Amino acid sequence: MSGISPDDRLRVTYRLFCGEGENPQDKATDIAYEQTVELPAECVGDAITERVVGRVESVESGAGRGGTAVISFAPEWIGNDAAQLANLLFGNISLKKGIVVTGIEWPQTVIETFGGPSHGIAGVRALTAAVNRPLLCAALKPVGLTADELGELCYRFAAGGIDLIKDDHGLTDQPSAPFDERVRCCAEAVARANDATGGCTLYFPNVTGPATSLDRRLEVAGKAGCKGVMVSPLLAGLDSLQHISRETGLAVLAHPALAGAFFGENHGILPEVLLGDVFRVLGADGVIYPNVGGRFPFDDRTCQAINERLRGDLGNIRPALPAPGGGIDVKIVPHWLGQYGPDTILLIGASLYRQGDLTQATRRLVDTVERCAG
Amino acid sequence: MSGISPDDRLRVTYRLFCGEGENPQDKATDIAYEQTVELPAECVGDAITERVVGRVESVESGAGRGGTAVISFAPEWIGNDAAQLANLLFGNISLKKGIVVTGIEWPQTVIETFGGPSHGIAGVRALTAAVNRPLLCAALKPVGLTADELGELCYRFAAGGIDLIKDDHGLTDQPSAPFDERVRCCAEAVARANDATGGCTLYFPNVTGPATSLDRRLEVAGKAGCKGVMVSPLLAGLDSLQHISRETGLAVLAHPALAGAFFGENHGILPEVLLGDVFRVLGADGVIYPNVGGRFPFDDRTCQAINERLRGDLGNIRPALPAPGGGIDVKIVPHWLGQYGPDTILLIGASLYRQGDLTQATRRLVDTVERCAG
Repeated sequence: MSGISPDDRLRVTYRLFCGEGENPQDKATDIAYEQTVELPAECVGDAITERVVGRVESVESGAGRGGTAVISFAPEWIGNDAAQLANLLFGNISLKKGIVVTGIEWPQTVIETFGGPSHGIAGVRALTAAVNRPLLCAALKPVGLTADELGELCYRFAAGGIDLIKDDHGLTDQPSAPFDERVRCCAEAVARANDATGGCTLYFPNVTGPATSLDRRLEVAGKAGCKGVMVSPLLAGLDSLQHISRETGLAVLAHPALAGAFFGENHGILPEVLLGDVFRVLGADGVIYPNVGGRFPFDDRTCQAINERLRGDLGNIRPALPAPGGGIDVKIVPHWLGQYGPDTILLIGASLYRQGDLTQATRRLVDTVERCAG
Repeated sequence: MSGISPDDRLRVTYRLFCGEGENPQDKATDIAYEQTVELPAECVGDAITERVVGRVESVESGAGRGGTAVISFAPEWIGNDAAQLANLLFGNISLKKGIVVTGIEWPQTVIETFGGPSHGIAGVRALTAAVNRPLLCAALKPVGLTADELGELCYRFAAGGIDLIKDDHGLTDQPSAPFDERVRCCAEAVARANDATGGCTLYFPNVTGPATSLDRRLEVAGKAGCKGVMVSPLLAGLDSLQHISRETGLAVLAHPALAGAFFGENHGILPEVLLGDVFRVLGADGVIYPNVGGRFPFDDRTCQAINERLRGDLGNIRPALPAPGGGIDVKIVPHWLGQYGPDTILLIGASLYRQGDLTQATRRLVDTVERCAG
């Protein structure tokens, strides 16, 4: 189950894969204690048991020795702390086996505390020229180019009319293109191209890095005229999303680096829960994920489920844009447009670079998408 | 392979599990590109290929369709950025399948940049009364107690002569025991007990939380007289370890919350690489891990491997203390002492609480360990 909780408790659904000697009921009880008091029942007084220990709301046996359990938690143990949310969901039980978080029902208070996307689908769209069609996003790479060279690529993408250019997530603050210099060169190149074409391409620099550098990088990005940034929350800390969405006026695109560690078949967190629910609740306006049929093994069901979690109703927070990427070919962009609809960021990387003339390639892509959508 | 790299490149060893249509050589090449330029070979010029793309140093075919590959990376793409280290190791390939990081050979420059533990085994030991025996650590819990109640538990543990008290990793900044108040009560209680007994019990509060709160929490801990803290690097951001070890005089104990997501059998990072190598290089003076035979499924080989990575020679950085926990029973502490030797923190939780009188239980435990070691 996902959506809003029927009461003020965070309800987490787990698929359980029981090993020798385990059963779903005991495994659920173990999770309820492990994720809260970390003590056996006999060491915990009644008051703490009532207030703190997770409540096993239901357990259903499934095929084999498996099952499904719903456990609810009082939101006061999370507060406004993204790290503690992740801890409650999967902190200690990550070290166990056979547990997959398959759904979250969110208390209204938790949703409100984290606040969700600051821009949302409409807000990000309003920054672009894309009316009723998917946003097109190019990836700026590779690592190793100078800031000037990256700026030149930006100019070409922007001259071709791309909606959005995002830094490759591996571009951080390397000597070849230090953050400040890169952001200055790229933002300036995009502004120059926008002036020449009358377009409004956006440049979202990657701010992933040490937490102590985050505020400075956000300031540099804002001063350079960027309307948004990209961050890899699992590298930079989950609270980076929350910080950017709550403390700055910048839109934020989340990158899934490291997230795949959680996508084990019999142990982990479902991609639509982590990249859909959690990233959105913490403040992502858009979430990049590896599209089906690309160079990563996501399937169609997972991609559609992520889209639904990002766009669907969830209390009073804004919907977010799915950004499928990782091997989307320009040739089949019309297919993805039909498949995913207009409220999508289509992330195109190698397939533009392969064509040599980036401006021409970009223009063809934009034309195709406008034609299909129009 | 682990240890120091023979040249100035970060050498990563991967165990590869090949699916239908895959082979180890191509899979290794794919990793080398995916983790650096994120572009196919034909889109990358010679200069970038030479400088940036990972070099496949060796590939050996193994049983079935599997194999082992060593890929080396230039350290300039990491810099002093813990997030970028994690990204290079497993960022995008986390989203693929069948790749396990089994070893790292570290360039001397990377080791020096991150700097490793600021205290190390000798430094932490020097803060305690433990001479030539394992350090004994109690866990302060459960969440839900007030700061006064937690302080009272601290007093009892300290009065019993425990070496170290660490916050439960679920204790953050909840209304029942807000961070500042908890640290003040607990540090004060420990100081009072130390005054009464002439002991030197340490209290390490958990500073895991939003990155923006970290500096303030470290300051509060320092001012309260704490000589060290605990952090969950995968919740708080990996660079939290580096920040604490480099920017404060505090020792730091790392907690493995969320780390289990990486321990998939056919996909992830070996526990000894993540908790041993990486946590130590980033600055952990001690690393908590789930001991074999406790309530988590670690095996003996893994525990010994973590111990070796934490304590073994690694360039010029200090060794760190393994802190096995998660169900260590006081009754078999002598066994673990024999098994793990003196340079260990034995983390005892529930098995002390079960005995009711914490001071008595702690005193018996300390006596037993002193007797066994003496």
